[in-house]
Amino acid sequence: MTASDRRRATITDVARRAGTSKGTVSMVLNDRPGVAPATRARVVAAVQDLGFRPSGAARALSLSRADAIGLVLARVPATLRSDSFYAPFVAGLEQGVGHADCAVLLRFVADEAAEAAAYRALAEGRRVDGVVLADLRCDDPRVDLLADLGLPTVTLNRPDVPSSAPAVCHDDVGAVEQVVAHLAALGHRRTAYVGGPLRYLHARRRRDAWRRATRDHGLAPGVEVSADFTAEGGARATHELLDLRPAQRPTAVVYGNDTMAVAGTVVAQHRGLVLPRDLSVVGFDDGELSAYVRPSLTTVRTDPFAWGEQAARTLVDLVHLGPDHAAVPTDVHLDAPRLVVRDSTAPPAAHPIEETR
Amino acid sequence: MTASDRRRATITDVARRAGTSKGTVSMVLNDRPGVAPATRARVVAAVQDLGFRPSGAARALSLSRADAIGLVLARVPATLRSDSFYAPFVAGLEQGVGHADCAVLLRFVADEAAEAAAYRALAEGRRVDGVVLADLRCDDPRVDLLADLGLPTVTLNRPDVPSSAPAVCHDDVGAVEQVVAHLAALGHRRTAYVGGPLRYLHARRRRDAWRRATRDHGLAPGVEVSADFTAEGGARATHELLDLRPAQRPTAVVYGNDTMAVAGTVVAQHRGLVLPRDLSVVGFDDGELSAYVRPSLTTVRTDPFAWGEQAARTLVDLVHLGPDHAAVPTDVHLDAPRLVVRDSTAPPAAHPIEETR
Repeated sequence: MTASDRRRATITDVARRAGTSKGTVSMVLNDRPGVAPATRARVVAAVQDLGFRPSGAARALSLSRADAIGLVLARVPATLRSDSFYAPFVAGLEQGVGHADCAVLLRFVADEAAEAAAYRALAEGRRVDGVVLADLRCDDPRVDLLADLGLPTVTLNRPDVPSSAPAVCHDDVGAVEQVVAHLAALGHRRTAYVGGPLRYLHARRRRDAWRRATRDHGLAPGVEVSADFTAEGGARATHELLDLRPAQRPTAVVYGNDTMAVAGTVVAQHRGLVLPRDLSVVGFDDGELSAYVRPSLTTVRTDPFAWGEQAARTLVDLVHLGPDHAAVPTDVHLDAPRLVVRDSTAPPAAHPIEETR
Repeated sequence: MTASDRRRATITDVARRAGTSKGTVSMVLNDRPGVAPATRARVVAAVQDLGFRPSGAARALSLSRADAIGLVLARVPATLRSDSFYAPFVAGLEQGVGHADCAVLLRFVADEAAEAAAYRALAEGRRVDGVVLADLRCDDPRVDLLADLGLPTVTLNRPDVPSSAPAVCHDDVGAVEQVVAHLAALGHRRTAYVGGPLRYLHARRRRDAWRRATRDHGLAPGVEVSADFTAEGGARATHELLDLRPAQRPTAVVYGNDTMAVAGTVVAQHRGLVLPRDLSVVGFDDGELSAYVRPSLTTVRTDPFAWGEQAARTLVDLVHLGPDHAAVPTDVHLDAPRLVVRDSTAPPAAHPIEETR
């Protein structure tokens, strides 16, 4: 058969026949260094065998592709170990890029000041094809920065600043309302809230939802402690709450994630409280082992894995659309998180709490 | 002052003055595309202000650097969520590369067949400066592949094939012996072992250590079940063991990681067994919440975070040595893991186990 009557060969066909990657084929086509002579020879042979004629657009596209998406976090790396959100979220990102033979580039930076330089390096060095923007902050400067860098972006939930990037939304406000309704129904009147740093939109949004719900249910305005999502932070905040005078001490504590809630449970037990009789505890995220701690943790089941997978898929689609696409990408809305009632919540003790130290 | 009496400016100085990354500076110096005109102008100005004269070697080096190290895993992405080793290990990698302004590129592939292509893409596309080789298998073909690709490599423990790559070792044999000694001292005579896939060197090494130790302590040769490190696998293996006739049923089970041990605990409890009275359970890794499950888990405290950090530091040092270094990199040995005794192990029940279904 002749070249004319066979389907036009793609760079994928060439890569498959040469037994190498599309990236390598494009490096050979563009005479870039760093390709082993033997590999280069195989690619050239495959190009000839298949009668492959790269179009300028296809070449530009394959050339510019890093086959990786980026996630930059201004957190300590240990977050990946201790936080109940990020390990499953990154696992979800990997799941989402898997179908595109794509990798996830993870970069932890010391602080928000180092973020801009990290994003510039990724964009200008063409290290990633796009990024997922997590931990959105109030007035987040990264939204404009990434637009200026021309780096395809997907945000987790909608920023509070104008953004043309598609958002993958997993709204948690309703779940927080379910938590307060659950505690109110059990007879709690004094609840406390241990949330994350308020510069994060999600921390502020949940805190506000908790405030609104406590007011709506006629509960006393509760004590608020801003922590940092770590076990240490959760333990510190819990000591602070249990040190309050009995009249102000909460009978139930709502935590911003399971990590802080489990640490708070242990602190309360070490102080001689019997849970849930003397203190009800509610977490957030429903981590892997939260059903197995004692008392098993009442928490909000978010789905970080599904969130990561959807964010990655949305970003990969955006990258494949290319810079010149006319279509405006629409937001994606995941099923809302929901309350999971376990053994860590119960009616408050009738008698005042006696701590046995 | 004149150019002559000031310290010779480095590419780092230029990057700092231009407010951009070293990668961008090298792209400008080498007239590569993809740099914003304004940025390019700032870099050129900084080069002139500082009287910067790039050496050929420095240029080549800064040009070839991807500022990322790679980890390719032939596992399902969910491993990062459920496995008690990988989340803290990747966190450790991030900790280890942090001081070098470097990222970690994570790639999960469907199977071992897809691995080679993934490594080739990383090497030929210059996506990473080197890789960490984990989950070493018997006769692992990746050792030669990575040497052929000229990709700087650090292995987790020593392969069973000749390897010139430095190994970061965290020997677990002694810990397995401690586990068996602990169970023997409690009076157990019938133990079972639920390990990982035996194609993994670490799974085989631990299984062999358990066999040797049971023999040395005069225990009955125990039942072995090969599982996959997941909660589902641990649950299935536990059902298999508890379905054995009472005469063969183990009074203690040693699991290859905490994830399987916790799942096994829950299965045994659902089957009506009282732990640790009716069954002793031992895990491996000492995950974040293993002290908080009930009964709290007796396990082996490995340190995946420290292992990842040391592996990343060793690899970054290797990369900075460059391809022409004469020095032979030596192996690094971390402190050996050790047994942590908690509430999931106790003397076996005197009476035969009655299951109440």
